Amino acid sequence: MNPSALEALIEALRCLPGIGPKSAQRIAYHLLQRDRKGAQRLGDSLLHALSSIRHCQRCNTFSENDICERCASPRRDQALLCIVETPVDMNMMEQTLAYQGLYYVLMGRISPLDGVGPRELGLEQLLARVLDGVVSEVILATNYTNEGEATAHYLTAMLRPKGINVTRIARGVPVGGELEYVDSGTLAQALRERKSFQG
Amino acid sequence: MNPSALEALIEALRCLPGIGPKSAQRIAYHLLQRDRKGAQRLGDSLLHALSSIRHCQRCNTFSENDICERCASPRRDQALLCIVETPVDMNMMEQTLAYQGLYYVLMGRISPLDGVGPRELGLEQLLARVLDGVVSEVILATNYTNEGEATAHYLTAMLRPKGINVTRIARGVPVGGELEYVDSGTLAQALRERKSFQG
Ligand SMILES: [Zn+2]
Ligand SMILES: [Zn+2]
Repeated sequence: MNPSALEALIEALRCLPGIGPKSAQRIAYHLLQRDRKGAQRLGDSLLHALSSIRHCQRCNTFSENDICERCASPRRDQALLCIVETPVDMNMMEQTLAYQGLYYVLMGRISPLDGVGPRELGLEQLLARVLDGVVSEVILATNYTNEGEATAHYLTAMLRPKGINVTRIARGVPVGGELEYVDSGTLAQALRERKSFQG
Repeated sequence: MNPSALEALIEALRCLPGIGPKSAQRIAYHLLQRDRKGAQRLGDSLLHALSSIRHCQRCNTFSENDICERCASPRRDQALLCIVETPVDMNMMEQTLAYQGLYYVLMGRISPLDGVGPRELGLEQLLARVLDGVVSEVILATNYTNEGEATAHYLTAMLRPKGINVTRIARGVPVGGELEYVDSGTLAQALRERKSFQG
């Protein structure tokens, strides 16, 4: 019942995560009726991003250049490489202002249920990056989820035999956290990983 | 922290209803990392729809032509004009197979809270359509919501003085509906609007 260009738009909107046919139709009507300027900007910026965004050849994050600004910076510690799952995680690390090294962004995690193994993650590229002769410590900052943990274990098994010092960010009670509100798994782990107190 | 083409995409995605900054970032990453083909199709179809979709000059629905197929059909009853709020509502009416007249799609409803009054709805165009000399009955099929009802009342006050026969689709217990599950407002209305039984 809809014109074909409208049907095509409704169908195309379904590439957005979590958008079913009803929502897609609602969005298409909204854009055509109420926000043509926004729709134009979205169409333009999609096509522009697709043509200009690639992956940094060193850290694998999204970049408009072959090497991203951060990897090209002479002020970062080239001997430290922090491995994160996503660009968002990298931004979270940066916001701590506690890290001056470089990054490698996996753009995912090992997840057998989703069909993502070491090959899908392109870990050969990571291995080549780590073995550049300058990196001396790899800091695993994957999530403390089952999949993030599995990824950390896999990476450790891959990198340690190459003589790389592999570390993992600490796990425990959050800063400012009250025991009453911390889940028991975290608390048990914090107990097992207790350290000599620098009182 | 993101490349500018990516930031522009994230910003542009916020024209989608209900998408905040976090969701926009998640969607942008998803498209660039996992579904570039879908993103390309979405960009293309947005721009194509914007350039090819306009409003039918007779019924105001989305159309690729000045006059949509339905309005151009010689098989529809030109004397009946059904007024609906949206193209979806028009499709719902069509699916009943109980109506052979034409339509006018308001593309909205009178809603003072949203700043939508008679002017924003472009009701002069509707008035001109109704007064074509052929339409003899206008059937109001706006929703039975407060806003749909207000719209129906406004249209009646506008059209009846022009000598147009204005009717409203009936309200009552849904076909197949059990009294036990019908809300009391509907039931009260069905009681008030009871009719002589053709038993
Ligand atoms: Zn980089
Ligand atoms: Zn039409």
